[in-house]
Amino acid sequence: MAKPIFVLNGPNLNLLGTREPEIYGKDTLDDIKAKCEAKAKALGLAIDFRQSNHEGELVAWIQEARTGASGLIVNAGAFTHTSIAMLDALLACQVPSVEVHLSNIFTREPFRHHSYISKAVKGVICGFGAAGYELAIEALAGLIKNKRPS
Amino acid sequence: MAKPIFVLNGPNLNLLGTREPEIYGKDTLDDIKAKCEAKAKALGLAIDFRQSNHEGELVAWIQEARTGASGLIVNAGAFTHTSIAMLDALLACQVPSVEVHLSNIFTREPFRHHSYISKAVKGVICGFGAAGYELAIEALAGLIKNKRPS
Amino acid sequence: MAKPIFVLNGPNLNLLGTREPEIYGKDTLDDIKAKCEAKAKALGLAIDFRQSNHEGELVAWIQEARTGASGLIVNAGAFTHTSIAMLDALLACQVPSVEVHLSNIFTREPFRHHSYISKAVKGVICGFGAAGYELAIEALAGLIKNKRPS
Amino acid sequence: MAKPIFVLNGPNLNLLGTREPEIYGKDTLDDIKAKCEAKAKALGLAIDFRQSNHEGELVAWIQEARTGASGLIVNAGAFTHTSIAMLDALLACQVPSVEVHLSNIFTREPFRHHSYISKAVKGVICGFGAAGYELAIEALAGLIKNKRPS
Amino acid sequence: MAKPIFVLNGPNLNLLGTREPEIYGKDTLDDIKAKCEAKAKALGLAIDFRQSNHEGELVAWIQEARTGASGLIVNAGAFTHTSIAMLDALLACQVPSVEVHLSNIFTREPFRHHSYISKAVKGVICGFGAAGYELAIEALAGLIKNKRPS
Amino acid sequence: MAKPIFVLNGPNLNLLGTREPEIYGKDTLDDIKAKCEAKAKALGLAIDFRQSNHEGELVAWIQEARTGASGLIVNAGAFTHTSIAMLDALLACQVPSVEVHLSNIFTREPFRHHSYISKAVKGVICGFGAAGYELAIEALAGLIKNKRPS
Amino acid sequence: MAKPIFVLNGPNLNLLGTREPEIYGKDTLDDIKAKCEAKAKALGLAIDFRQSNHEGELVAWIQEARTGASGLIVNAGAFTHTSIAMLDALLACQVPSVEVHLSNIFTREPFRHHSYISKAVKGVICGFGAAGYELAIEALAGLIKNKRPS
Amino acid sequence: MAKPIFVLNGPNLNLLGTREPEIYGKDTLDDIKAKCEAKAKALGLAIDFRQSNHEGELVAWIQEARTGASGLIVNAGAFTHTSIAMLDALLACQVPSVEVHLSNIFTREPFRHHSYISKAVKGVICGFGAAGYELAIEALAGLIKNKRPS
Amino acid sequence: MAKPIFVLNGPNLNLLGTREPEIYGKDTLDDIKAKCEAKAKALGLAIDFRQSNHEGELVAWIQEARTGASGLIVNAGAFTHTSIAMLDALLACQVPSVEVHLSNIFTREPFRHHSYISKAVKGVICGFGAAGYELAIEALAGLIKNKRPS
Amino acid sequence: MAKPIFVLNGPNLNLLGTREPEIYGKDTLDDIKAKCEAKAKALGLAIDFRQSNHEGELVAWIQEARTGASGLIVNAGAFTHTSIAMLDALLACQVPSVEVHLSNIFTREPFRHHSYISKAVKGVICGFGAAGYELAIEALAGLIKNKRPS
Amino acid sequence: MAKPIFVLNGPNLNLLGTREPEIYGKDTLDDIKAKCEAKAKALGLAIDFRQSNHEGELVAWIQEARTGASGLIVNAGAFTHTSIAMLDALLACQVPSVEVHLSNIFTREPFRHHSYISKAVKGVICGFGAAGYELAIEALAGLIKNKRPS
Amino acid sequence: MAKPIFVLNGPNLNLLGTREPEIYGKDTLDDIKAKCEAKAKALGLAIDFRQSNHEGELVAWIQEARTGASGLIVNAGAFTHTSIAMLDALLACQVPSVEVHLSNIFTREPFRHHSYISKAVKGVICGFGAAGYELAIEALAGLIKNKRPS
Repeated sequence: MAKPIFVLNGPNLNLLGTREPEIYGKDTLDDIKAKCEAKAKALGLAIDFRQSNHEGELVAWIQEARTGASGLIVNAGAFTHTSIAMLDALLACQVPSVEVHLSNIFTREPFRHHSYISKAVKGVICGFGAAGYELAIEALAGLIKNKRPS
Repeated sequence: MAKPIFVLNGPNLNLLGTREPEIYGKDTLDDIKAKCEAKAKALGLAIDFRQSNHEGELVAWIQEARTGASGLIVNAGAFTHTSIAMLDALLACQVPSVEVHLSNIFTREPFRHHSYISKAVKGVICGFGAAGYELAIEALAGLIKNKRPS
Repeated sequence: MAKPIFVLNGPNLNLLGTREPEIYGKDTLDDIKAKCEAKAKALGLAIDFRQSNHEGELVAWIQEARTGASGLIVNAGAFTHTSIAMLDALLACQVPSVEVHLSNIFTREPFRHHSYISKAVKGVICGFGAAGYELAIEALAGLIKNKRPS
Repeated sequence: MAKPIFVLNGPNLNLLGTREPEIYGKDTLDDIKAKCEAKAKALGLAIDFRQSNHEGELVAWIQEARTGASGLIVNAGAFTHTSIAMLDALLACQVPSVEVHLSNIFTREPFRHHSYISKAVKGVICGFGAAGYELAIEALAGLIKNKRPS
Repeated sequence: MAKPIFVLNGPNLNLLGTREPEIYGKDTLDDIKAKCEAKAKALGLAIDFRQSNHEGELVAWIQEARTGASGLIVNAGAFTHTSIAMLDALLACQVPSVEVHLSNIFTREPFRHHSYISKAVKGVICGFGAAGYELAIEALAGLIKNKRPS
Repeated sequence: MAKPIFVLNGPNLNLLGTREPEIYGKDTLDDIKAKCEAKAKALGLAIDFRQSNHEGELVAWIQEARTGASGLIVNAGAFTHTSIAMLDALLACQVPSVEVHLSNIFTREPFRHHSYISKAVKGVICGFGAAGYELAIEALAGLIKNKRPS
Repeated sequence: MAKPIFVLNGPNLNLLGTREPEIYGKDTLDDIKAKCEAKAKALGLAIDFRQSNHEGELVAWIQEARTGASGLIVNAGAFTHTSIAMLDALLACQVPSVEVHLSNIFTREPFRHHSYISKAVKGVICGFGAAGYELAIEALAGLIKNKRPS
Repeated sequence: MAKPIFVLNGPNLNLLGTREPEIYGKDTLDDIKAKCEAKAKALGLAIDFRQSNHEGELVAWIQEARTGASGLIVNAGAFTHTSIAMLDALLACQVPSVEVHLSNIFTREPFRHHSYISKAVKGVICGFGAAGYELAIEALAGLIKNKRPS
Repeated sequence: MAKPIFVLNGPNLNLLGTREPEIYGKDTLDDIKAKCEAKAKALGLAIDFRQSNHEGELVAWIQEARTGASGLIVNAGAFTHTSIAMLDALLACQVPSVEVHLSNIFTREPFRHHSYISKAVKGVICGFGAAGYELAIEALAGLIKNKRPS
Repeated sequence: MAKPIFVLNGPNLNLLGTREPEIYGKDTLDDIKAKCEAKAKALGLAIDFRQSNHEGELVAWIQEARTGASGLIVNAGAFTHTSIAMLDALLACQVPSVEVHLSNIFTREPFRHHSYISKAVKGVICGFGAAGYELAIEALAGLIKNKRPS
Repeated sequence: MAKPIFVLNGPNLNLLGTREPEIYGKDTLDDIKAKCEAKAKALGLAIDFRQSNHEGELVAWIQEARTGASGLIVNAGAFTHTSIAMLDALLACQVPSVEVHLSNIFTREPFRHHSYISKAVKGVICGFGAAGYELAIEALAGLIKNKRPS
Repeated sequence: MAKPIFVLNGPNLNLLGTREPEIYGKDTLDDIKAKCEAKAKALGLAIDFRQSNHEGELVAWIQEARTGASGLIVNAGAFTHTSIAMLDALLACQVPSVEVHLSNIFTREPFRHHSYISKAVKGVICGFGAAGYELAIEALAGLIKNKRPS
């Protein structure tokens, strides 16, 4: 059976729906997980959806994705702007990956404009709330298909 | 009948397919136009696809979108990094808009990391080549539907 | 007969009155034109009032002012912050010139605090909305009179 | 009877006419005072014209203007670039205010390009020598009239 | 019964009393805990005193404080200067919070002058050693009382 | 009899209660003075409470504190960010001193984040409004007691 | 017949000879055109000499050069310092190209020291006035000859 | 018996040998461990070799080294550039320590040129791949010997 | 009779001898005054020695020097680094002037390395303690003599 | 007889032809010398061709050129970016001078983009390899001819 | 016979043992030379140990190493931070090279943190005093052996 | 007999009197030498006056001064702004030293405002032309006398 797509969520994303909804929207992380599963299923894919407040755990999951996943979606939350360790893990990971943000980070505080991990992903999607995850799955579906021998 | 989505392309994008294909891919601008039209049609939407090397013309088209379009996709090319005039036109334009880039601009030269227009769009999609336009149409379809009275 | 004062308006100023009225006020560009004509007439002067979204056209108009105008009022809009070409045209233009902004640009985003063209004008007036154009005409009237032989 | 417009002048402006006339012009501060009084009188307004080399005294005068003046013109001289205390006093002062400079500060040394007080005034006028004060009175006349009940 | 005040201590604070006593003082973390308990008791409050070297654990504790605490005191240690994740957790936490530092961080190395979390707390107290915690409890006592209906 | 604690207030603090109350609170400077006197009395201390808009006067008062005060509380207002002269006076003053700010300066404009005088005080307290002065007196009471021979 | 060398001139270069002759020299653009034609003729080459104030037009000409020219000389005027669009067009253009400036841009204002297009040309010649164009033609003659099969 | 030398390895170093071998070499972390053990044995020393992706765990190990190790070798990986917490732990640790990097970090991306922990170690060795660990053990052997009473 | 040399001393210099003697030396300001008078007398000159903590007063004294002094020695203390008002006063003052500092300001904190007033004086002498004033008087003696008709 | 043109070459240029030929080309310094002599001879000029790794020797040669040369070509190599001493020598040298670089320095590392000596030369030629020297001789020939009385 | 390892020492290293021994240690340069010779001999290698205060001489020695040395150790002293000429010489030199510093340069003044030559060496060793040279010889021994055919 | 004062002059100072006299004055270096000898003689001192364009030679002379001179005057010319090697030599030299500049370097180009060697000298004198050397000798006379046992 095909390997799943890892959907990795960083610190504080477990608070979604209650925390600053004018920025992050009203969907909870479970709502997003459900949407992702539905989208993946429609495209014949499986997902493995996780969240952690620990940088080290996120690094380990990205390492795990090297052999255990067919694709990778990362919403690194605040670690986006500070974690060179996640960048290094992504650089060592050959599976296609997408960086997602719920909000448009470029309309926020200056220290949120810079992402360390953008350097190591295939593409970036931000500003579309929960829908951004669905777009990322769709993008990955295309990238994975292109890599498969016909 | 519903207003079309404007798909606006900035300077040098008319060269696509021939110019630095390792960065921008092998699709020509006509190929992308065809993909956009197919995607839009599948979602029950129409598109109006344009390209210009003139900043002033792009500004005028964004102004035209204020009343003539239901959504806006902008790949501003090099003007992404220099045009405050396009930013101002977008700020004055209430229709939902998406910024698209073929390449992942964050893996390129530093002067391509900053976008003036990100401040005025709903979301950003970059790094997926021609597929990024299709994702943008899909994202807009959702945004437009949410605004319509049921 | 005396040469007119050129009043040159840059990109997006054609949207005045509809675009972000809390920043730019409720006057349309036609309203401002009418006020300028009235003010100029009261001072025995004529004006030639223009707007363009094209940097190249604005450069050409400033060049035209070298022999065709007795004074110059420039509201360069977004080009204020990016156009060295307009700066160069103004440096080559000996007629007295005034830079005008509707809003107080120093209370806005940092990238709007710097003006390239300030270096090449006689003076700057900003923050008074449409009234700023009238003050500029009055200022020019004084500057032009001082240059005339008695 | 109506409250006067305060015209406050900062350090070294008492030297006008003798100090670097190629930058500041040949008018003395008394000449400027006379021009201001004439202009104000023509518009049915009164002025209260003062100068100080002490930052603390200028702060106190701006505080006094909160209840004692109908408008405020400030040429802060060198304090323009260093006084957050004057900025704070202006932020606490609701009467309409105008920042004036004799010279075009943007053509001078870089440390004169930044003004702390611009953030707290209605508008800025610079580069027109003594005439800038007259334009400021005219601008204030309009602003004061607009605030009055008809 | 009333919810406790969380007193959260970041990395290396478990070493207090032995590590660089000329900077951090001779009190151990247990000494500080005892002082906090005494102070809180005197004010009719309870505290919950914790320490961790793990950013993720501190983030989780701040999240826990959203419903489990009546107030929050944070000495984030080195994470003060690097953790946007703790900032985000604090932004999502409505209980009144105080940032405390044993030393005066502004007299130390430049990289210790900037705190990410200051943006999300009610106030900051630094430089008073262990006494700073007691002052923070006192400050919180006032803030909590003001929020209670009488 | 014991020397008093000097409580020195900088420019514009005489406007407290009327100026931007959403930032500085509704207490007037007289209210704060009364609170300080009550707090000091409860701790068996006396205070000498002063305000000036003049940097030179504040410098002189800090010099006076060298022999005339047992402790020093300084809310330097806008001079916090510009006065090296007050820093120098504090460096020459051996009595224990505390820097106080009514608002949390780290949540305000960037130019208010840097304090020159932090380098020369024992500790900093900010963000607690008038209560910050009371906390400072309490902190000083501890510092003064520790210096006294038993 | 051999393709010509395109000699492209940017904004305000149409004013040459009248504009700031102490910087740009006394030659008009027609004089320079004549010198270029003579030089080219002597080397058995043809030139196509153009000027525009429009960035978009210059971009289009560089695109045209991809198939229509044997070499390219660009004096981008003010666009040198601001046009990433011209840089992109040059990057997409394989014919040998030379950047020319009449003045020594490194002795002028700091914002004229940086050229975006230098990154995409074979070489740079500046400071020799009209003679710089002749040197550029000579340099191109060598570069073109080296590329031809013998 | 003598205390061992701690050899602490940061995030992603568990991937060695598979991750970007052109930068990090072909040795796995187990290979390096074996080399270290051999080298230490030859010098009459023992080592305790560990790896973690968790900053907090690395901080705890450095704290443990204060009493449990005779020397410390730290290859902090990505945390080199971001961890002030590890710096603080090292500052509190008196045993001689050496910072090691497999690659020459000064030939890589600019954000890898700065190390927080260099400030707190005896010396730095970088660029020699696995051999760098052996050199570090040798360096520590000398440092430890010098501290022992003869 | 000849005009005196003004010797102007800025904030906190009245504390000399007691304040940080390891930086500023053990001479009091009166000691320095006495040395200056002796030196001046030996050279047939008179001095007028003053000190103020008020920037405005120092500005006024420099203005007074325009007609009342034959030379000017300024030790601006902390105002050296912040006072554009003193710079402007010096720019308006034609008498030869010397900037003096007791300490070598270039060995101190970075914010003391920059002097605004250096731009407006003939020369600078720093690092020689009280002897620097004597050297300044000697330097001025030479400058004054050279200006006198023989 | 006419004075020669000095052609001065800086550090490491003696290695030409062997050092990084993909950047500097395959010509040795002797090859370039031969080309220069041929070109000069064709124009009726003589050259004096030298190389040194010593900044002081290059300074001395530029000083010698003040009276001993009719023109000056300088390829300062690495000293281009660091030598203010060579800048000063060139500023003191009235003979027309040209700065030459084999490679296009603007496509290389950022620290090679800035040249100290550009400020003191007539013009700059870079990117044309050995041919750049020939163009420089031609440029100088024109400059020297223009200075001669007819 | 095998080529020696060049050990090149930059300016002021001839003063070792007398100059700031708390930073550089008590070994003289002759002591270090003796240690290097012993170490090299033990490894079957020869060294050629030199010192110069002249940048040009050091450049020449590095050039000489291209054919005359089997390895290169460079302690460039102050030239570490300023010499692009030495960087260029090292870039042109294929023999394995090691940069050595006696002190840990990252704990010293900021201008000593950056090394130009790090970009061109195999590895860096700093902070171990004279022992750093021995480690460098050992590192080179390994590098040289790996290059030899067996 | 007493050791002489070394007066060391850096690059291009041998051109004095002919080079840019409006900046450096009309005195030749021989004139300055004569003035220095006269001044020293009057104070019972001897001088040893030297000039070099070579940084290495100047470094060596400063080293020589450690045992061969009673005082040191250094006008490092352009090396002032670039030579860390001279700074290091001065740091290793205990004899009292004075930095001299003919011109007021703070009124010149920004890159001349910073001196590396100021950090290592007793004091700085600039702006007085040749007279600055005489003042420096006088200052040294005082410093030397204070060190002598009476």
